[in-house]
Amino acid sequence: MRLATIRTPDGTRAVRIESDAAVELGHPDVGALLSRPEWRAEAEAADGRRHDLAGLDFAPPVPFPEKIVCVGLNYRNHILEMGRELPEHPTLFAKFARAQVGAYDPVVLPAGSDAVDWEAELGVYIGRQVRHATPDDARAAIAGYTVVNDVTGRDFQYRSPQWLQGKTFEATTPVGPWLVTAGPDDAPLSAELTCTVDGELMQKADTGDLVFDPAALVAYVSQIVTLVPGDLIATGTPGGVGHARKPPRHLTEGNELVTRVEGVGECRNPLVRDPLVRG
Amino acid sequence: MRLATIRTPDGTRAVRIESDAAVELGHPDVGALLSRPEWRAEAEAADGRRHDLAGLDFAPPVPFPEKIVCVGLNYRNHILEMGRELPEHPTLFAKFARAQVGAYDPVVLPAGSDAVDWEAELGVYIGRQVRHATPDDARAAIAGYTVVNDVTGRDFQYRSPQWLQGKTFEATTPVGPWLVTAGPDDAPLSAELTCTVDGELMQKADTGDLVFDPAALVAYVSQIVTLVPGDLIATGTPGGVGHARKPPRHLTEGNELVTRVEGVGECRNPLVRDPLVRG
Repeated sequence: MRLATIRTPDGTRAVRIESDAAVELGHPDVGALLSRPEWRAEAEAADGRRHDLAGLDFAPPVPFPEKIVCVGLNYRNHILEMGRELPEHPTLFAKFARAQVGAYDPVVLPAGSDAVDWEAELGVYIGRQVRHATPDDARAAIAGYTVVNDVTGRDFQYRSPQWLQGKTFEATTPVGPWLVTAGPDDAPLSAELTCTVDGELMQKADTGDLVFDPAALVAYVSQIVTLVPGDLIATGTPGGVGHARKPPRHLTEGNELVTRVEGVGECRNPLVRDPLVRG
Repeated sequence: MRLATIRTPDGTRAVRIESDAAVELGHPDVGALLSRPEWRAEAEAADGRRHDLAGLDFAPPVPFPEKIVCVGLNYRNHILEMGRELPEHPTLFAKFARAQVGAYDPVVLPAGSDAVDWEAELGVYIGRQVRHATPDDARAAIAGYTVVNDVTGRDFQYRSPQWLQGKTFEATTPVGPWLVTAGPDDAPLSAELTCTVDGELMQKADTGDLVFDPAALVAYVSQIVTLVPGDLIATGTPGGVGHARKPPRHLTEGNELVTRVEGVGECRNPLVRDPLVRG
């Protein structure tokens, strides 16, 4: 089941994406839906207003998650090719909700950054509150998957020891177009993850190559803080980022950034300048 | 003016603290109040239900801020005494809202951490939305000050290159007891900041010694992301943390942690074990 949040003239609406239409679910966004204990059954049964698929305007599925937890180096092949050892613990950092944009929205090149880079990632949504999760709890807490690009200002990322300021620029992080639901008995997703810039393939990996898979990340984070419905975990990016290329490559105005997870979905975002609006 | 959020049998309430009573302001918490454009005038004029000061149960002033932005090394004397150069840019990291506890609540020692440390800090609340702020915009965006202790699991902080996991443990960060309002023409606050553990003085500094003062931090962060009413900036801690002592000192069950900013307020929190409740 594919669940999205679309923008309409009357505000956002949570919808179920079918082969021929988007069907309203009676909630303003997927975050509100996920906070309902029986959200799966409710989403399957809903039969609200229908929208043509052509011309849907996608918001991030959860416009204001309580938390966005991002993961650093987490692709086995990439870590090994860099000559590093596999980490014992995940590297976690945060991103604020306003960093998000929808699947086809412009990505805003931050004013002041000259080194904006791509990081294609598998996103995992939480569908059930969980704390001190067992492995079973953790699997059951996963609502499903989405596509994320953790677009990063490398210069700001490395201005200080902490990456946050390079990671949370307003309107830089495509998320969507939808949440594809997963069940607690599903194996960890093994799917092709790719990133292209103006059609050129930059990253390609299998999401099955994660050192810490989605359930392991849920279990780990839940030892630290309660995860709640709508929380998003961005599971890390594989090799192929622009910063590591020789010479380095960066995103510029007019580029088209395409981020794709096979069987999950695709974001397709144009790069635009920051209009520098104050207030 | 002192503005707090108190817990009552009917839920939380925003109040103005007077010399003899707490007066309800007609909002569930200070975050809801700050989202009103005329919040200062409204808070001054409100004349709601009154509560005795004795026995008030303080929640964090803004229980669910959209953002908590924390600042790393930011006290001039401490940086210089460590033999480091003053930084050109602030070090920023995040904390999730669930890390907060009220001014007199228990601080929960995270299960799995054997190195829980104190970090007394001046907190700054945002009272007006601001993006790409000029210095004047930044000063006008400051609602006022509070007291924060950025309690940290040092072992988790240094498990990976990013500090988040040591900084955002559930129910570890005292914030409060109230917001003391500041005006746009006030000079940066110069006040004594102290931290004691079981009565022993551990940290003492002047908040005027910040490398990046509150308005500079607001201006800087607003270049990255829109700050909104209720957002909290924890401005960094001075020397005297337990981790840097020889031998290192850490918080243990039964300790009393007192964090104080002269003229702003005081948090007084007992340390308790994690009850390890799942779900």
